[in-house]
Amino acid sequence: MLKLFYAAHTCSLATHIVLEEVGADYSTVRIDFGKAQQQSPEYLEVNPKGRVPALITDRGVLTETPAMLVFVAQSFPAARLAPLDDPFAFAEAQAFNSYLCSTLHIAHAHRMRGHRWVDADDAASIAAMQRKVPQSVTASFELIEHDLLKGPWVMGERYTICDPYLFTLAQWLEADGVDPKRIPRVIDHRRRVGERPAVQKAIADELA
Amino acid sequence: MLKLFYAAHTCSLATHIVLEEVGADYSTVRIDFGKAQQQSPEYLEVNPKGRVPALITDRGVLTETPAMLVFVAQSFPAARLAPLDDPFAFAEAQAFNSYLCSTLHIAHAHRMRGHRWVDADDAASIAAMQRKVPQSVTASFELIEHDLLKGPWVMGERYTICDPYLFTLAQWLEADGVDPKRIPRVIDHRRRVGERPAVQKAIADELA
Repeated sequence: MLKLFYAAHTCSLATHIVLEEVGADYSTVRIDFGKAQQQSPEYLEVNPKGRVPALITDRGVLTETPAMLVFVAQSFPAARLAPLDDPFAFAEAQAFNSYLCSTLHIAHAHRMRGHRWVDADDAASIAAMQRKVPQSVTASFELIEHDLLKGPWVMGERYTICDPYLFTLAQWLEADGVDPKRIPRVIDHRRRVGERPAVQKAIADELA
Repeated sequence: MLKLFYAAHTCSLATHIVLEEVGADYSTVRIDFGKAQQQSPEYLEVNPKGRVPALITDRGVLTETPAMLVFVAQSFPAARLAPLDDPFAFAEAQAFNSYLCSTLHIAHAHRMRGHRWVDADDAASIAAMQRKVPQSVTASFELIEHDLLKGPWVMGERYTICDPYLFTLAQWLEADGVDPKRIPRVIDHRRRVGERPAVQKAIADELA
């Protein structure tokens, strides 16, 4: 059985949603960042990166959201959550998810995880990073709004693994200082994804 | 025919190598960062992100190295550069490449691209980011050294799309202030990848 290590209000929600969407038999383990459980010896045995998410499978541990989303889609092909038989369409989906992890999520992370890239006691530089977040996160969402989000779903007519991932990162945009009026298609997409039963179930589980 | 937009000394080398490895029929277009060609109107038509690499295919444009590497591997399956028929092994390869793009490459980027995350005229914060690079890039390479690089190749006995990507990012580690003695397996891997004819051909093309 699959086991997902997650933390509330993090990108692990994307994989949690996809496990619900495909009807997987899975369990979850909550990691409490407030208690720094992601750095505990027990968790570092699971994932030496000290991050969430991590997915225990019968073959071993997987990490990194883009990889985990594809793994779930490939393991449950009947759910048709990725264009697995079309290398170009699959690459487009992967490029979208790669942009989310390496550009949008990184821009966002400079608000609360600045200590990864400057000394933790350098308050001035940490604050300087935080001041840039509204601009850098807005720029990423505007690229998605204008160039990447095909509509009605990210990849077009079919809901895929890209949709819950975008939905997850879009949870944080107001707190990041993004003006929702600048990205109406992203906001409408977030609303529609949020109406799906699998999404509501995953969120309710994480906040219970 | 495939057309790769690249810039010398960037992560586009990884895709360039893989195109050579599979024997693809492709051409290249050099983008000169010194002339800010990645921000030219002509290039933004190709890739609105204003970054390299970009790959023109007969179906459209692809971006993001992890997606492009899988696309080439899937398009030339005889080269066996990715475990395409094994969802778990494929996810492991994707997780490795995702770590490279979203953690290692990002840590490195704080040395020369700090303006993405603080105001460009904030010299003190830019310098603070640069001072952290040796520590953050070393930490990423040490995780690869101890936990991810199976040996002899990244995924074990078979050379895959993970190898040229790690090789590409390992070009920069001395300039990032990493002590090579701390990561002997990564250094040995870099040497062995560098001996491959496809790698030497791609590098020679980019530096010609």
